Amino acid sequence: MIGAEIEHLIKLLARLPGYGPRSARRAALHLLKNRESLMRPMSQALTVAADVIVACPQCHNLDTSSPCSVCSNPARDGSQICVVEDISDLWAVEKTGAYRGYYHVLGGTLSALDGITPDDLSIPHLVARAGDSAVREVIVALSATIDGQTTAHYLSEALRAAGVTVTQLAHGVPIGGQIDYMDDGTLSTALKSRKAV
Amino acid sequence: MIGAEIEHLIKLLARLPGYGPRSARRAALHLLKNRESLMRPMSQALTVAADVIVACPQCHNLDTSSPCSVCSNPARDGSQICVVEDISDLWAVEKTGAYRGYYHVLGGTLSALDGITPDDLSIPHLVARAGDSAVREVIVALSATIDGQTTAHYLSEALRAAGVTVTQLAHGVPIGGQIDYMDDGTLSTALKSRKAV
Repeated sequence: MIGAEIEHLIKLLARLPGYGPRSARRAALHLLKNRESLMRPMSQALTVAADVIVACPQCHNLDTSSPCSVCSNPARDGSQICVVEDISDLWAVEKTGAYRGYYHVLGGTLSALDGITPDDLSIPHLVARAGDSAVREVIVALSATIDGQTTAHYLSEALRAAGVTVTQLAHGVPIGGQIDYMDDGTLSTALKSRKAV
Repeated sequence: MIGAEIEHLIKLLARLPGYGPRSARRAALHLLKNRESLMRPMSQALTVAADVIVACPQCHNLDTSSPCSVCSNPARDGSQICVVEDISDLWAVEKTGAYRGYYHVLGGTLSALDGITPDDLSIPHLVARAGDSAVREVIVALSATIDGQTTAHYLSEALRAAGVTVTQLAHGVPIGGQIDYMDDGTLSTALKSRKAV
């Protein structure tokens, strides 16, 4: 009933994160109604991005240049490497403007359940990078989940030989967070890590 | 920091229904990680669909052929026209397999608030189609909202001169619906429209 071309497009759209068959249908209609302003530009943007975006061989970030614009910036602090799980985390940290060092994208976290071992991630590469004499500190910015914290612990062991300081993000009440909405784990961690005002 | 090509793609993705800047970022990363299996095929599918899909001049459905595959099917019942608000509604009715007549997509509902008048919709075209001697019944399948019901009422007035029977979808408890979860409006309508078992 619907043309095979729309069916094919809907199937592809349904594979986008957060989309299912029904929302993909809506998206396909929305695209068809905005053919010149959205559909054709998006088709072109997809091809252009697929052509020019490459993975940085140093930090595994995605960019048009190789190494990426962060790694190739000599003004950044070469003594620090911030370890993140995914590129979206790198973007989030970078957006704060609070960090001026380099990055290292792991590509995931260790997970016994999913069978993800250190060799599936770019951990050996990180250990090699940390061996550089300029590097003093590795900041582990992984999610405060079981898998994230297991990975952080593994990294601190693996990096011991490299002679760098391994730190991790502080845990506590988020800025703007209300005490009575906090879970027990966050509150007790915040209490243990309390600081002088 | 992110390449201009990714930024541009994220901006376009953020215009998809249900997507915002954050989810568009996730989608862009997902696409870049599945370049050959998803990103390039999607780019191509968008161009192909934009090229071949046309609006049916008769019922305003979208299809590769003009008139669309429903309108050009002589096996369908020419005495019935089902009026729907949008193409997705046409797809929903068609999927039931319970209807064998033709369709008419209005492209919206009348709305005093949004300033949508009969001339903004394909209502004059519907009145012209209903004037055809073969048409006996116009089935109004619009949403059971204020705007939908206002439009249904307007249609029944506008189609009176064409000498066709105007019907609308039954209102009541949905199949699988639990009585104690129904709102007052639905329950009282279902009570008024009760049928012999």
